[in-house]
Amino acid sequence: MVLDPGSDAYTLLAEERVDHRFKGLPPDADGLTVGELAAQRRNLFTGGFTTPVLALSAERLEHNLKLMETYTARHGLVFAPHGKTSMAPQLFRRQIEHGAWGITLAVPHQVRVARAFGVRRVFLANELVDPAALRWISGELDADPGFRFVCYVDSVRGVELMDAALAGSARPVDVVVELAGGEGARTGVRTEAECAAVADAVAGARGLRLVGVAGYEGEVPDADPERVRAWLRRLVALAADFDKAGRFAGVEEIVVSAGGSAWFDAVADVFAEIPELSLPVMKMLRSGAYVSHDDGHYRELTPFNRVPEEGALEPAFRLWTQVVSRPSAAQAFANAGKRDAAYDLDLPFAQVVRRDGAERPADGISVASLSDQHAWLRTAPEADLEVGDWLGLGLSHPCTSFDKWVLIPVAEADGTVVDYIRTFF
Amino acid sequence: MVLDPGSDAYTLLAEERVDHRFKGLPPDADGLTVGELAAQRRNLFTGGFTTPVLALSAERLEHNLKLMETYTARHGLVFAPHGKTSMAPQLFRRQIEHGAWGITLAVPHQVRVARAFGVRRVFLANELVDPAALRWISGELDADPGFRFVCYVDSVRGVELMDAALAGSARPVDVVVELAGGEGARTGVRTEAECAAVADAVAGARGLRLVGVAGYEGEVPDADPERVRAWLRRLVALAADFDKAGRFAGVEEIVVSAGGSAWFDAVADVFAEIPELSLPVMKMLRSGAYVSHDDGHYRELTPFNRVPEEGALEPAFRLWTQVVSRPSAAQAFANAGKRDAAYDLDLPFAQVVRRDGAERPADGISVASLSDQHAWLRTAPEADLEVGDWLGLGLSHPCTSFDKWVLIPVAEADGTVVDYIRTFF
Repeated sequence: MVLDPGSDAYTLLAEERVDHRFKGLPPDADGLTVGELAAQRRNLFTGGFTTPVLALSAERLEHNLKLMETYTARHGLVFAPHGKTSMAPQLFRRQIEHGAWGITLAVPHQVRVARAFGVRRVFLANELVDPAALRWISGELDADPGFRFVCYVDSVRGVELMDAALAGSARPVDVVVELAGGEGARTGVRTEAECAAVADAVAGARGLRLVGVAGYEGEVPDADPERVRAWLRRLVALAADFDKAGRFAGVEEIVVSAGGSAWFDAVADVFAEIPELSLPVMKMLRSGAYVSHDDGHYRELTPFNRVPEEGALEPAFRLWTQVVSRPSAAQAFANAGKRDAAYDLDLPFAQVVRRDGAERPADGISVASLSDQHAWLRTAPEADLEVGDWLGLGLSHPCTSFDKWVLIPVAEADGTVVDYIRTFF
Repeated sequence: MVLDPGSDAYTLLAEERVDHRFKGLPPDADGLTVGELAAQRRNLFTGGFTTPVLALSAERLEHNLKLMETYTARHGLVFAPHGKTSMAPQLFRRQIEHGAWGITLAVPHQVRVARAFGVRRVFLANELVDPAALRWISGELDADPGFRFVCYVDSVRGVELMDAALAGSARPVDVVVELAGGEGARTGVRTEAECAAVADAVAGARGLRLVGVAGYEGEVPDADPERVRAWLRRLVALAADFDKAGRFAGVEEIVVSAGGSAWFDAVADVFAEIPELSLPVMKMLRSGAYVSHDDGHYRELTPFNRVPEEGALEPAFRLWTQVVSRPSAAQAFANAGKRDAAYDLDLPFAQVVRRDGAERPADGISVASLSDQHAWLRTAPEADLEVGDWLGLGLSHPCTSFDKWVLIPVAEADGTVVDYIRTFF
């Protein structure tokens, strides 16, 4: 059981009132509950929604959830998708229903959200040395024997700070030593010798228990398939060395974890070669961006481009905006900006134009830049675009798309909105 | 009266429960109301807050509110600060208490937030052609005779779409013709001849009433004091021409509006020269970034740099993060990233380090980049920074700082948290 059956937090989401907190929703739905609005099955284009409004495709979301369920099962991977991407407990639940072991998160606030929605297994892919947050984690562990929590350590000082904060806890906090992707990479221990020193410190800390090793291959400098595989082999070798040295004595299984959304094919390959250790190995993949996928960054980087025979993710987001100004033949402006669309890796992509119920490709239209509340559109001579048209935009980077929306309509292909996804950022 | 006295929405904010929705707040405050937590006057550094946590300075906020109140009064300007910056009704209320006529906003969702909190005068500095949103606006106008609403028009087609959507409304929607900052600038009519055509269309629209002219000097191409003043004089001349042509017959006053946060000195100067027209002129300034000001973009651009004798804004934000990793002498990582800090105009600025209750300048420390949940810090040899230290960051761009936080502690200089500001993005 990885979801607490007693949690009624999901019911409370459906009972929230539609009001000013949720941009894009129909003004005439004010006062309905979210559940009542969902039951009305309004159409995204004719049901009174206002622009800008971000929509998730019901079919594509389900497709992506299923694809990674079968992918991880086929490769013998335990799946803990990174929840920081969506911060949407309803999606956490569906990920778990689709076979996920639990949810990966990055900061303690995110763990609080997951716990409020009954998630019982959390992998914190980050260091955590904040005493107030650690005391809260410790309280959760002591109160719920079914709560499993694992986090990174990468320094002796960090281990000491954790141990001091955890004085008096009944259950130790499980930790994995983070191996850095390389020199100049993000967090993580740089060398195997330092990894051993950190593991020694954990062994001496009453409040901690070493359960494995982990890292993030996405930060390997100048990443290519060869370098990423070489780093993953270092990670596996570190686990084997620690095991040989008896560092995992007393644990039930050894955690070996890696895997963002750009190299999970390499993770699957290298983790398949993990030699037999003294205990069962939990080969944990943490990819999170797959849930919505995207039309930019991850469209380019997805491992499925290298292994098309294993399937393909589908971009599930479309941001609907309205053209409010068309001051010249070469320019138009839509009413979505930095508050509504991801802009950190790529600008949005103009995909389709809707006018009078008909949809056609956004030929000759591109997004030139974003202001806070406007999209600057460049229009070629062939572009047929008028004030009042709806423009559908594809997005790049799921993490910075989800985080701009509090309640996201989930629409079927014909526009019928069947659900609303609540986020907590 | 610009705030509805019947609104109890502010009371409801204080009655909200502290829980997983609000990152950074003390985990042990779970279940208290926001008002109860505020009454505890906890200290930001010792009261159990978790990092990352964004804080507003109580003193600097008050200073900025007062400064723009006196500035606009001194220059005879009606002040409608742009509320999109903060989307915080508690700040809207304080702006209004500090003399603001009403609140400027950019999209109808933001108007819904303002209306939910009793704001009775809204200037929508954008075109609005969405029928669902217009019907909602019209309903608000018809239901509340005290609700004043003005928005932009910049095309004949836009006027026609608005008029069609407003068929059957009792009160017309007040509009101003938006004059573009120039060729290639953002929204707005490009030429005076086209402005007249748009005004003609308004005159023929039953659902609309022309009340003035407006624009945004921040988009004047290659803006400098001379070009901005030249454009402002064009705007004033347009108002005078429209007045001479009898286009404002029947209105109570003529609205002439401009003014972001980079050129309000020029707006004050040029609006002071507005000639006598046939009706009183409402000279409206819309600057919004002043409320928090910043340590980057607006620190450089603020007009007070040119008129220091009129005062100086103070940056009111500080983002507190914790160092979680120190893998090499040249690098450290803090637990705040793109989800927590503005990154669209500048990266955050390392300002101070706190360790064991002592605060000192962040010498030799700079932010090299941001991941979703990490700040990459570059550390020079002299940098004294350890895992566990709190690092205070200055931010650039108020709009993309506010929008990453749902509930923001307001702290006095000694760290005492005296209030919590709720945002609605």
